[in-house]
Formats: sequence, structure tokens, C-alpha cells
Amino acid sequence: MEVVAGIDIGGTNTVIGLVTREGICLRQQSMYTRVEGNFTDYINKVVEIVGQLMAEKDDNLTLVGIGVGAPNGSYSLGAIVDAPNLVWKGVLPVCKDLTERLRVPSALTNDANAAALGEMLFGAAKGLKHFIVVTLGTGLGSGIVVDGKLLVGSDGFAGELGHTTVKPWGRQCGCGKKGCLETYVSAPGIRRTAFKLLADSNSQSILRTYPFEQLTAKCITQAALKGDKVAREAFEYTGKILGMKLADTVAVLSPEAIILFGGLSNAGELIFEPTKRHLEENLFSVFKNKVKLIPSGLKDENAAVLGAAALIWKELEGKIQP
Amino acid sequence: MEVVAGIDIGGTNTVIGLVTREGICLRQQSMYTRVEGNFTDYINKVVEIVGQLMAEKDDNLTLVGIGVGAPNGSYSLGAIVDAPNLVWKGVLPVCKDLTERLRVPSALTNDANAAALGEMLFGAAKGLKHFIVVTLGTGLGSGIVVDGKLLVGSDGFAGELGHTTVKPWGRQCGCGKKGCLETYVSAPGIRRTAFKLLADSNSQSILRTYPFEQLTAKCITQAALKGDKVAREAFEYTGKILGMKLADTVAVLSPEAIILFGGLSNAGELIFEPTKRHLEENLFSVFKNKVKLIPSGLKDENAAVLGAAALIWKELEGKIQP
Repeated sequence: MEVVAGIDIGGTNTVIGLVTREGICLRQQSMYTRVEGNFTDYINKVVEIVGQLMAEKDDNLTLVGIGVGAPNGSYSLGAIVDAPNLVWKGVLPVCKDLTERLRVPSALTNDANAAALGEMLFGAAKGLKHFIVVTLGTGLGSGIVVDGKLLVGSDGFAGELGHTTVKPWGRQCGCGKKGCLETYVSAPGIRRTAFKLLADSNSQSILRTYPFEQLTAKCITQAALKGDKVAREAFEYTGKILGMKLADTVAVLSPEAIILFGGLSNAGELIFEPTKRHLEENLFSVFKNKVKLIPSGLKDENAAVLGAAALIWKELEGKIQP
Repeated sequence: MEVVAGIDIGGTNTVIGLVTREGICLRQQSMYTRVEGNFTDYINKVVEIVGQLMAEKDDNLTLVGIGVGAPNGSYSLGAIVDAPNLVWKGVLPVCKDLTERLRVPSALTNDANAAALGEMLFGAAKGLKHFIVVTLGTGLGSGIVVDGKLLVGSDGFAGELGHTTVKPWGRQCGCGKKGCLETYVSAPGIRRTAFKLLADSNSQSILRTYPFEQLTAKCITQAALKGDKVAREAFEYTGKILGMKLADTVAVLSPEAIILFGGLSNAGELIFEPTKRHLEENLFSVFKNKVKLIPSGLKDENAAVLGAAALIWKELEGKIQP
């Protein structure tokens, strides 16, 4: 049976899985991204694990391609460029190295684009031709599909919705700008909002017992589910900022659906309800009541690997632009 | 010689021209859009003028198609839908009617999309595959080209950049929302800005001699060229709002170039310089110093007709999505 290797490169972990054309992840393995040594040592380790996974069972698999999702991944270059969360700087020629070593075609894109392809082939966007996937994790990424194809733009970096501006002199962002969407809408973003609300109000809240570093989006979710007023307000504010920005994005792209993916989206209605409400309130009239806001259709534990695998399956079918 | 009819439907005037594949407008004629009678009477008048133009000289022309640029034009429907500036409401089946009467293929899109196609075939975007045209007139429209194709979205209404939000509780917009980009960046937008500045400051200004209705973008341009402080500030503010919004748009779409088209863009450096400066200041790092901001390459007097003609030339070549 033909399989591809889906590789999700994160700042901390790299997850590698073998995925069929039907989107079944047969098996996967995780490794630390911060291996000892240089980038070549890292690639060696990845190649070794792909080999182990292929050999693990006697199920007669043929490796036909490698798909990679990575922070600051450029599809056009097949490389990672200046990723702030990785130890290796500059241009990392991931595709060139992997294809040389494993002798199969490879393709790379950023994590959010991979997620969009994963949803299209295997998840909530099956049958859709115009949609946006918004990944809500440590940052906010977006993968845009137009007419069934990934929108990568002139240099492969399209879809940086997380770095559009909410407030010109707002919160400091890791990218060097201020007021970027991801400083409000992401796991660290809702934490910042919770701290702001704790500073501004006198409301009693379980959140007052947490130091900044320990207050996770999960804590805020649990508190909100128990009725904690500050936690609920934090979700309301996060949904408002996200809904308004999505309304602007709909005006530009006119998608059929927006899919919320990962981390913060697991809070379910706590985040979906205010986002949907503020999205509708802010939509230009021709778009009202048309755009679906839906959760990811990929299983959490291998969503990112499925996305990376979808990239190379699409590539093998010749359907990626440019 | 084969020609198409390019038809630009505006709130006040409709301009009809015969255009070659090379983008030469052989001749054109203008008529009032608000003809006596119903929409069928209007179409009759358009058909009559196309016939007159074709017969005007003995230059052996063959009509091969009709392209239409119109406010609230839907490419997918080939119709105008609820255009606030037209007297006829509801869905106006322009393409169906014109094709029935003139027996050639027709296509319709909004004015900004037509402008984008005009720039691509005949103007400043020749050879570009990823660009945005922003039309600065009574409103603000945008036409987006991705990978050489017009981005029309799921329902044909993509590209409504003018109705993205600058300030959530900002200036009242004709669309029913508040704080839309076009209430700041357009001919009426810069007038509103000038009045705001006149209200806020004590600066002497020639603009204080104009009543609101008579203060045109042209007056403000002339005052700015003479060094009028308030007029110059009005351009600075307009460029700032536009530059910031374009930075967001670049982050999503990653174009090679942005083309400013029509009305306000004729103010030249007065609008280009502050827009470019604020665009660069607000760009996410990977996009800095990459995106060109350029003026239209189409001749003013028939730019809109050339755009409408480009639409049907592209259509005849089978290059429009979806």
C-alpha cells in the first residue's frame, strides 16, 4: 500500500506519521525538535524515524512522498525561513535534504496551510472550494483555500492573518509589531486578556490564584465552564476580536466556511458562540448568514500530521498552486 | 477585426466602448444611466448604442463579446444585485439580457474587478500574477488577482476591502455599518477627514471657505499642492489609514504589487508617499520592501471601459475562475 510521511515540525516536538491516501494515520512517532548538533543531525534523526516507522510492521508499505508542516515554512522554497521558535536560523532546505535522503518527492508549507489541506482532504472542508482554517495555538495562523487551491501568494507566505493589526499601538507581538491579532487571539492572547480583566475589575475569580506563567488557556476554559465571570469575559473579548477580524477577512475572500483548529478552539461554544455573534454583527450585508463557522474535522492527536500528509498527497495529484 | 464592447455602468453615466484584443479603445460613447422607464428600456438603449458604435465607421468590425463592469456586480450570476446607487432594485440580469439581444457571450463583474483585469491585460499589472487593484472614487473597491486569476470567492462578491473595519464605532457608512475603510479612504472620505481637521484645529486654511457639499477631493489636492497645512494633513491621515489596511491585506494575500486606481489616486505623491510609508511601517517582517505600490497604467478617460473589455477578453480565453 502507498503511504506518505507527514511531518509536523514544532518548536518543541517533531511528529512523524505514515498516512494513507484515505487519511488514515497508520502509526506515528514523536521526537524532540531540539536535538543535539546542527540541522543536518536533525534531518538524519527524522530520516531514521521514517525508516523505523516503515519497517515497524510487515504490512508491505511503499513510501511515495513526504509532506512537511513547519513554522515560517515557505512552499515556494520548500524551506523554513528564519523561524523564531527554532534554534537554527536562516534558510533551512528541508525538502531538498529529505528528498535527497529518502528519494521521494517532498513539499513543505506552514502549519496553518497544512491544516487547511488536511481539512480539505480528510476533515471538515471535504467538498468545499473556498474556506479558511484558523489555527489557534501558541500563535494564530491561517490557511486559505480559494477555488480548491491553497493560496500561497507571490512568495509562499500568504495567510499571515495572525499578524494583521487589531490595535495600532496595542499589545507587543513576538514579530516586532504591536497590536497583532495573535496577541489577542491565541492561547497566550487569552491569558493576556484575563490578566488585563483581573487588573481592570474587582470581580472575584479563581484566576487570581495563578501566576502569569501558569495561567493556561485550559485553566481559563475550566474556570469559564464553572461560571467564573472573568474567565467568561475573557472568552467574550477574544471572540469579539476574532469575530470582527474574520468579518474583514470574509469581505476580502468570500469563503463558504471558516474552520477553527487546535488549542483554543477546543473550548467549544465558549469561543465559537461569541466569535460567531461578532462575526455576523460585523459582516458586510451581502455576506450575512452565509458563512459557516465550524470546528476542525481532524482528530486532535494527529491533526497536524494529517495536514502535512495532505500537502504531499495533493502535490502528487498536481493540485497545488502556483 | 474582432472587438468586444466594454460597458461601464455607473450611478450617473454608462460608458460603452469598442475595444480590440490589444486594449485599444477604438471609440466610445456615454449615456445617462437613469433613462426614462424600466430596466428593459435601459438595456434597449445600451444595445442601440453598441449598434451605432459598430456601424459608425466602415472598418469591418466583428463583435465577439460584451464585458460589463458594474456596482454590486456578481460574476457568478452575471447580474447586478441590490446596487444602492441604481434606481432599479433586486437582481438585474444584465448578461442574460445583453447576450439574448446581441447574440455574443457576455460577462459581468464589479468595477474594481474589471479594473484589475484591465491592469493585467493592458495596464500596470502586465506580467504580474499576484496583485491588488484599489479603486479610490466615490467608494473604495478592490480587485484581487491570485495566480493570474480574479479572486471572486464563493459567491462572486470577494474583494470588498472598502467595507472592512478601520474603527469599530467610527464613521457611518452607506452600507449600514460604521467605521468602514471607504468612509476614510475615498473622495468623500478625505472630505470628511478635512472637515474633522478643520473642527479640531485652529489652523488657517483655504478649506474653511468651502461648504461641505462643495469640498471635493480635487479642491483638497489643489490646496495641498499650494502648501495648505490642513489639506496636507488630510492626505497624511488618509495615507496612514490606507497604508495600515494595505499592510493587513498584504499579510493575508502576499501580492507582488498594489495598484491605486481612479479619483483620489490622481493626487499622485500626495497620496502615494504617506500610503507607502505607513504600509512599510506596518508590514509583517517577511513582506517588508517587497510589495510595489504603483499607479494605474490605464488612460483615465477610458480606464473603466478597458477593464470591462478585459473581463470578456479573458473570459473568451477561458481564464476566469471559477
